[in-house]
Amino acid sequence: MNSAVEIIRTKRDGGRLPTEDIDWLLAAYTRGEVAEEQMSALLMAILVNGMDAAETAAWTRAMLASGTRLQLSNVGKPLADKHSTGGVGDKVTLVLAPLLAACGAAVPHLAGRGLGHTGGTLDKLGTIPGWQAELSAAQIVTQLRELGAVICAATASVAPADRKLYALRDVTGTVESIPLIAASIMSKKLAAGADALVLDVKVGSGAFMKTPEQARRLANALVAIGRDNGLPTVAVLTAMDTPLGNTAGNALEVAEAVEVLAGAGPADVIELTLTLAREALRLVGIDADPADALADGRALSLWRSMIAAQGGDPDATLPHAAEIHTVVCPATGRLTRLDAYAVGLAAWRLGAGRARPGDAVSAAAGVRWHARPGDQVVRGEPLLELHTDDAARIPDALAALDGAYDIDGDSAALPLVIDRVDGSANQ
Amino acid sequence: MNSAVEIIRTKRDGGRLPTEDIDWLLAAYTRGEVAEEQMSALLMAILVNGMDAAETAAWTRAMLASGTRLQLSNVGKPLADKHSTGGVGDKVTLVLAPLLAACGAAVPHLAGRGLGHTGGTLDKLGTIPGWQAELSAAQIVTQLRELGAVICAATASVAPADRKLYALRDVTGTVESIPLIAASIMSKKLAAGADALVLDVKVGSGAFMKTPEQARRLANALVAIGRDNGLPTVAVLTAMDTPLGNTAGNALEVAEAVEVLAGAGPADVIELTLTLAREALRLVGIDADPADALADGRALSLWRSMIAAQGGDPDATLPHAAEIHTVVCPATGRLTRLDAYAVGLAAWRLGAGRARPGDAVSAAAGVRWHARPGDQVVRGEPLLELHTDDAARIPDALAALDGAYDIDGDSAALPLVIDRVDGSANQ
Repeated sequence: MNSAVEIIRTKRDGGRLPTEDIDWLLAAYTRGEVAEEQMSALLMAILVNGMDAAETAAWTRAMLASGTRLQLSNVGKPLADKHSTGGVGDKVTLVLAPLLAACGAAVPHLAGRGLGHTGGTLDKLGTIPGWQAELSAAQIVTQLRELGAVICAATASVAPADRKLYALRDVTGTVESIPLIAASIMSKKLAAGADALVLDVKVGSGAFMKTPEQARRLANALVAIGRDNGLPTVAVLTAMDTPLGNTAGNALEVAEAVEVLAGAGPADVIELTLTLAREALRLVGIDADPADALADGRALSLWRSMIAAQGGDPDATLPHAAEIHTVVCPATGRLTRLDAYAVGLAAWRLGAGRARPGDAVSAAAGVRWHARPGDQVVRGEPLLELHTDDAARIPDALAALDGAYDIDGDSAALPLVIDRVDGSANQ
Repeated sequence: MNSAVEIIRTKRDGGRLPTEDIDWLLAAYTRGEVAEEQMSALLMAILVNGMDAAETAAWTRAMLASGTRLQLSNVGKPLADKHSTGGVGDKVTLVLAPLLAACGAAVPHLAGRGLGHTGGTLDKLGTIPGWQAELSAAQIVTQLRELGAVICAATASVAPADRKLYALRDVTGTVESIPLIAASIMSKKLAAGADALVLDVKVGSGAFMKTPEQARRLANALVAIGRDNGLPTVAVLTAMDTPLGNTAGNALEVAEAVEVLAGAGPADVIELTLTLAREALRLVGIDADPADALADGRALSLWRSMIAAQGGDPDATLPHAAEIHTVVCPATGRLTRLDAYAVGLAAWRLGAGRARPGDAVSAAAGVRWHARPGDQVVRGEPLLELHTDDAARIPDALAALDGAYDIDGDSAALPLVIDRVDGSANQ
């Protein structure tokens, strides 16, 4: 019956929302004809009572329909995209986009800025002098045709309903709903226009999903939406109890990504990047080993071209922190735990992240760790480096790291790649 | 920790809200420092996850504290008040207030305007030429000292948090929460400053609570708040499957109330009025039989003084409808059902009620029924009269009455007085 109050009452009482009601609601909300307070009551009802797969698919399509889709039919290459649900030290996109392009795919990656303790891809690339996040649709197509990789900001015409909803969910305690999270991710990924999608669903202390069960529910919701919309999608569940690589922070992570592109870098970043790359290449039907493109310099070369195409100087010196505080190892033994959330929170407190949309972030701030779980550590040697522009931030960052690591404790870490959910098999 | 988002998340996840958080939240909301969309998300979380007795009491006190209480200590009479949760044809307040005053009590009754299919006391009294709903606190005290009965509009300083919340709940599908309903009622009743309170909790098709179980839960919540705040309170559960008396509509109900005050009128209105009057007199310690004050004209005399004191002319002719449409009885037999909701909806569609706060209502519109369940009816005789200013409203009103009554059907009506919940016994 298309009344906002009736729609709210239906979901409040545990009912299903018909597709036509979802379509009407999100269109009217985008036009400003459904009040924010009505939408927030509905979001809370959805958070508590859920949405089924059909409702979630309808919600996703209605958000997609609130804006425009990139038209990439004349790029002339198989189009693959990737999304991560967010982790600490996760710089994989920076490596993966040029790597897939080096293997013959095109990657139209519309990225966001960070919020909270996980970094944003645009914030990381924004530390490269000259680099521009904003491209027009025509520029995106040209860059995909010529190079095969674009990482840029979503334009205002991509899922505007999602943008309004995301801001509302942030202030109304309605972020943690799997159907709403899934619809938000997939509406933006569908708008980006790729032919296939690989999802990195993070699990653990540093991730949004704390347990494999939660992550599997989200992964299932995501691949179901992909399937319903003709987008072959694979989700990989990966561990986020330990931060990825050796750094968390914007410029620190760019430097680490360049190391990996150059054929070096931390083993876990390499493993995760190659896992996701192989899934993506399989989905778009490219028979190539991405490890070769890392080893022979093609991925690094493509990175340099991609950065330069958006005005960045790939040879420029990245910002350095004014203050570096070193935490030394309190004992000799084996590092058995390094908590991802604590490291992310410390990096955030050092200035790497923002508390509110629109806040500035520090390019140089962050954390570097000299050992990963499983490594031997020696008392008195450096364990953690805190990088910041402002020494006054160090005490709060140190407090975040209190109890964040164990030496010679129990070791029960999950493998990096926990599981995969293949939504492409039943297409 | 007093952050709106943290409070929302606590209730969303099924937690208890500490009193200090409720105090902070409602004060900040009244000041406009908590956004409407945050409050609506919280209201939905409360609707779904509930509030316990301590939370509900704290919520009530915080709403009370958002405004001022009437100071009635120098009225010099025992102060009794009454509240009904709303039914069709319920004109009992119009009779009860002067009746209790005629027995020596004082009744400071702050009333509201109607919304939806049940009428509002102020709308009814507003049909009397000259009568004024707005009184100052000083005028209320004077009228209570001199006459003992006031029915007037709540001032803006009574529970302003409740007024803001009520408007928000109306548009966000969050009306139907027993703790929020109970807190809303009791914050206003506590602000009115009576020494004792009688509650008429309606049950049935024409009431907000459809089952005795729901009504008992509401009654228990209400008397618990009274007990926690030192206000002796008794709740009477009464049937609202059948409309009360023989009329529903503003001026129609005033005329019927005057009949009852004059010692005549429908038996059910008399029974309910006397039941509530006896509870109220017992609570304030007045040993008098209210039936005497109806029979000997004291109640009617007090009504005339009360109306005149607020500018009304008790002898004025009340508005009459321009159009009266009569529905005749389709068969001879015994009327076994007359549905309260259908009658209320018909009266509303005829113009007696409003769809939105601030809408105008018709004084004359409404429904009169010539028989009540249990009465013999004769084919071709008048059964229902539809009163309206606008004949175009009649078809929709007739549609509301389709299937609203049975002749020689099953009869399983509840007694008028179903149960009582005495919150004064454990004081």
